Amino acid sequence: MVIVMQQGASNQQVDAVIGAVESEGFRAAVNRGEERSVIAVLGVVDSQKVPLTDRFESLDGVERVTLISEPYKLSSRSYRPEGTVVRVRDVEIGGNRVVVIAGPCSVENRTQMLEAAEAARAAGASLLRGGAFKPRTSPYSFQGLGVAGLELLAEAREATGLPVVTEILDPLDLEDVYRFADVFQVGARNMSNFRLLERLGETDKPVLLKRGPSAKLRDMLQAAEYIMKGGNHQVMLCERGVVGFDDACRNTTDINAIPVLKQWSHLPVILDPSHSVGHTRWVPAIARAGMAAGADGLAIEIHPNPPKALSDGGQSLRPEQFLALMEQLRAVARAVGREL
Amino acid sequence: MVIVMQQGASNQQVDAVIGAVESEGFRAAVNRGEERSVIAVLGVVDSQKVPLTDRFESLDGVERVTLISEPYKLSSRSYRPEGTVVRVRDVEIGGNRVVVIAGPCSVENRTQMLEAAEAARAAGASLLRGGAFKPRTSPYSFQGLGVAGLELLAEAREATGLPVVTEILDPLDLEDVYRFADVFQVGARNMSNFRLLERLGETDKPVLLKRGPSAKLRDMLQAAEYIMKGGNHQVMLCERGVVGFDDACRNTTDINAIPVLKQWSHLPVILDPSHSVGHTRWVPAIARAGMAAGADGLAIEIHPNPPKALSDGGQSLRPEQFLALMEQLRAVARAVGREL
Amino acid sequence: MVIVMQQGASNQQVDAVIGAVESEGFRAAVNRGEERSVIAVLGVVDSQKVPLTDRFESLDGVERVTLISEPYKLSSRSYRPEGTVVRVRDVEIGGNRVVVIAGPCSVENRTQMLEAAEAARAAGASLLRGGAFKPRTSPYSFQGLGVAGLELLAEAREATGLPVVTEILDPLDLEDVYRFADVFQVGARNMSNFRLLERLGETDKPVLLKRGPSAKLRDMLQAAEYIMKGGNHQVMLCERGVVGFDDACRNTTDINAIPVLKQWSHLPVILDPSHSVGHTRWVPAIARAGMAAGADGLAIEIHPNPPKALSDGGQSLRPEQFLALMEQLRAVARAVGREL
Amino acid sequence: MVIVMQQGASNQQVDAVIGAVESEGFRAAVNRGEERSVIAVLGVVDSQKVPLTDRFESLDGVERVTLISEPYKLSSRSYRPEGTVVRVRDVEIGGNRVVVIAGPCSVENRTQMLEAAEAARAAGASLLRGGAFKPRTSPYSFQGLGVAGLELLAEAREATGLPVVTEILDPLDLEDVYRFADVFQVGARNMSNFRLLERLGETDKPVLLKRGPSAKLRDMLQAAEYIMKGGNHQVMLCERGVVGFDDACRNTTDINAIPVLKQWSHLPVILDPSHSVGHTRWVPAIARAGMAAGADGLAIEIHPNPPKALSDGGQSLRPEQFLALMEQLRAVARAVGREL
Repeated sequence: MVIVMQQGASNQQVDAVIGAVESEGFRAAVNRGEERSVIAVLGVVDSQKVPLTDRFESLDGVERVTLISEPYKLSSRSYRPEGTVVRVRDVEIGGNRVVVIAGPCSVENRTQMLEAAEAARAAGASLLRGGAFKPRTSPYSFQGLGVAGLELLAEAREATGLPVVTEILDPLDLEDVYRFADVFQVGARNMSNFRLLERLGETDKPVLLKRGPSAKLRDMLQAAEYIMKGGNHQVMLCERGVVGFDDACRNTTDINAIPVLKQWSHLPVILDPSHSVGHTRWVPAIARAGMAAGADGLAIEIHPNPPKALSDGGQSLRPEQFLALMEQLRAVARAVGREL
Repeated sequence: MVIVMQQGASNQQVDAVIGAVESEGFRAAVNRGEERSVIAVLGVVDSQKVPLTDRFESLDGVERVTLISEPYKLSSRSYRPEGTVVRVRDVEIGGNRVVVIAGPCSVENRTQMLEAAEAARAAGASLLRGGAFKPRTSPYSFQGLGVAGLELLAEAREATGLPVVTEILDPLDLEDVYRFADVFQVGARNMSNFRLLERLGETDKPVLLKRGPSAKLRDMLQAAEYIMKGGNHQVMLCERGVVGFDDACRNTTDINAIPVLKQWSHLPVILDPSHSVGHTRWVPAIARAGMAAGADGLAIEIHPNPPKALSDGGQSLRPEQFLALMEQLRAVARAVGREL
Repeated sequence: MVIVMQQGASNQQVDAVIGAVESEGFRAAVNRGEERSVIAVLGVVDSQKVPLTDRFESLDGVERVTLISEPYKLSSRSYRPEGTVVRVRDVEIGGNRVVVIAGPCSVENRTQMLEAAEAARAAGASLLRGGAFKPRTSPYSFQGLGVAGLELLAEAREATGLPVVTEILDPLDLEDVYRFADVFQVGARNMSNFRLLERLGETDKPVLLKRGPSAKLRDMLQAAEYIMKGGNHQVMLCERGVVGFDDACRNTTDINAIPVLKQWSHLPVILDPSHSVGHTRWVPAIARAGMAAGADGLAIEIHPNPPKALSDGGQSLRPEQFLALMEQLRAVARAVGREL
Repeated sequence: MVIVMQQGASNQQVDAVIGAVESEGFRAAVNRGEERSVIAVLGVVDSQKVPLTDRFESLDGVERVTLISEPYKLSSRSYRPEGTVVRVRDVEIGGNRVVVIAGPCSVENRTQMLEAAEAARAAGASLLRGGAFKPRTSPYSFQGLGVAGLELLAEAREATGLPVVTEILDPLDLEDVYRFADVFQVGARNMSNFRLLERLGETDKPVLLKRGPSAKLRDMLQAAEYIMKGGNHQVMLCERGVVGFDDACRNTTDINAIPVLKQWSHLPVILDPSHSVGHTRWVPAIARAGMAAGADGLAIEIHPNPPKALSDGGQSLRPEQFLALMEQLRAVARAVGREL
């Protein structure tokens, strides 16, 4: 931690800050510069203690406090330099083979779900997605089928052999979702629902953690930390677009997040091109980009009949579009030394 | 709703869209322009039905779909043009008198809480705030005292007569918080925790709804709708800063939100200058700005000893700073024809 | 400057960085921490030299480089702690009296300009604004009257006694604009047109520098530095809204910028509520907020007949609206201990 | 254009808007809905006329005005559906072969420039870049060698046969840059320097137009329109990262821009991964992503000795890193059906 004093801060103010640093059990290395003084805080900061940044920043004469070490540990690359491979039944995520998670935004009915699952399987997807509990901006929109939707997902898994990824919204649904899901999905709106994260950390099923629309990558790794702290280290990080100033697309795909997260963390990184770009016609280009940038997986929305979808029809691929995209993705995977 | 076709869309594509519009029970008014065709969808869109925007957007030849009417109803100004006054014990929010909600970020211990409450009362605040359940970016930060914190809040209310505003994080805490709080606070991270909002909508206590850091104002009004739909119309909207590209401050205060929300909605509007700007030294200027812009209330963090605070010490006012600010605020309130 | 090494950086890498630091003439204070090493660069960094941040960041093993001292000097508060008062004829900006700059977006014709100027004067504005050279997003929009517009501005100054603020777009127009203007306005799109700034720095007329829509405050002060370096220290900083993710308003008013710039810099700070919020109906609230937050001046667009304006009609006040606003502003000015 | 009236707007207000629409020579199709009235403006809007959006928005009772047709024409895909191929000496940009533009950020001296050029050529780049006039945030940073830099670029072209792309900052430099450059580069800070764009529109050399850091894609196409209107249709659009809320990288690469611009416009699209991500270690991943997303070219910064670079050393590739990247890019190009 580095404490930068204001220009013109008095010697007494500098001394008071040094005293505060030492009273917390650190050493202070002071550089009384010509323009301003800077105090480096030496020693291992135990982040389980009180928020020292705020504490020091509220002292008189302090301009700002800069943290040097990262506030996450278990999710940090240095914790497991070789990288994590998440296992879902017989599928591995984070190894050389890239996985594709495909399925409809919402589980709507039996026919739709089974057709979508079959399209996913036929094109070579590794996992099946589908929402039974849906967080919708408007209370008047379709909110999902609930447990009935989970049952349809299980039936689709039976039919295709694909493990199931599905969203959990509420701690109260934990038992239900646990019973049917192979992977818990935490949606973007819940990335900072820390109580939910903590409960998932106490389970033994993998978690697909989607990035909040305005979460810094640093914050996302701390959200992963909430899960991992409970003992569940099977976490996947999913970029799904962030807020931006342009309205050309639904979100701004933060493609930079892929190499950055791969370097900062040992956890597998997934890209969801469907939410990232938000329009069917542009999904294939962004899916290929994610593959080329080094993602360990892609989560893609497909629907047997998008104009009739109860949610996200405008960004879902039809089965034949998905089949064509998978061909392209296979070629890109090979080009970057991976398989699909 | 207006459907804009792509340039070069065929007549068949236009006709197919018209057919889809009519099959949903609407009339279609078509303008086959020289550059592109535009189809206006006439009739009352029942927003409880399927997401028509997505549906029409996924049809061939469609460039984009623009919604004309707003997706919120109960929170809209037109629903209650005269404005809503929220009542918390004998305090009214949304009338001519502007209210100040003051207190520490976290309840830390009995002395701190009682001192902060006394400072709030002495300076003329109308409501007391304090967090017993704290959502923290890092799992290693102080997470609040829980029920013990709620009890201290109740004691502070006894001592000062000020009603209590406190955050609820988790539906599982509902009974506990209900027992002690006068107002439920929904934090920025939970603005889109729709399950939580729905449960608060079934209670009879007012809700202070904070804006998510990247929520559009339109989305915030839909979040309020989730609460109001359950029958609880005692909702206050709280601007607390949004994400931005500059790191000079903790957040970007969206001061525009105040007049916009006052026009779009009948609900009282509160500004939290402490989180909005994030540094003690700049809180007074932003508090005055909020008052001058027409806020119905201000939520301000104070602490008897900020350098020792367990959270947000860097943005909390000391009692004497708060006292001085309240003087300034009284003058600004008078200047804009209100009282404090 | 602080250089943070990657976790696992080797001793050789640390030594190489120390060598690089010393070869640039600095001392290096190294903290070989348990997690990672941190190197503080001691000595006065001469910012006219090569970009050391980039240089050190490209060395092997370096995680990141953090600058401690600010990259601006002449525009820094510490350069002139007592604050700068800009003088335009007999108007002072930056003193206790707050100034209002009013006028139409574009000079359109003689009648419009004289009516607007008279409305500005009658309501108590101190300076007159109007654009003769207009930067427009579309090449098909009205581009301004050019020199003929400047002549009308001069006539309006004659008629009202109000000094004239007008935009300069192009170094090639410098002589023309210099001849007619009392203050050069640099528009948001030109904040980083460094050649233009350098030329204005060689003149003896004040400059109103508008913030670029995505410029950090730190960058804005460096833009001011480009002007001041040439010897012209009569610079005013103007916040006019920044880009944001919400489309409720034209821009996001960064109200935080006012107290931050007042602390970081000695230059007067102006708020332009018209561009910041972009809709006539919300301009008064934002103007009052700027006044309450401590602005030294406000720049407000007015037009005798907004529906007929050739630019910015949707955000201009009619004369009677402006008159009413000035009354409100006078009350707010008094409330914060200033005059108008 | 669609004009949405406020809820509760009176019949007189609606009629007044209809009158205004018709007085501008359009037909008005009115839908007096139950909630609010909507007026569609029919007829071809001549965008060279006054800003109708603003005009109508300033009428009483109007809630907002939505534009339907795009404000650009010459840069629109529909103007040249088959796509534009830009020719620079014997290099074609926009055809099946993807091009790489490589070179140092700044021309620093003869050795550096010739070494960089040779590294570019050896690895298979098609064009050479290098800045002689540099726009720098700080006035104290290296500002480029000026004409001496242009001469070194020309010498490097002689030595390698690679055509030269270089930035023009100022209309006053036009003759000098024209004499040496094969392609004018307009930097991000100058995307809205419309005077400069107009002058380049009158020349006969291609222009590489970089996107402003907060420019919407729609605005970028209007900037291209400023050039094309003058007769110069040889324009390339270059994404180089936009502002965002996360500080993990220098900018946020807007990878979505590639498929969107390819659909909206016929102009070739280039990605600059170096500025987009801003750190050498992440440049290769983003370069591959751009290739996979469908870019027609990549602009990559290389330097024979990055730690000694006078600008952008932290994001430049060494010759051997560039060579390795080109191998990867060739594989990705083949995977998406193109050559490099």
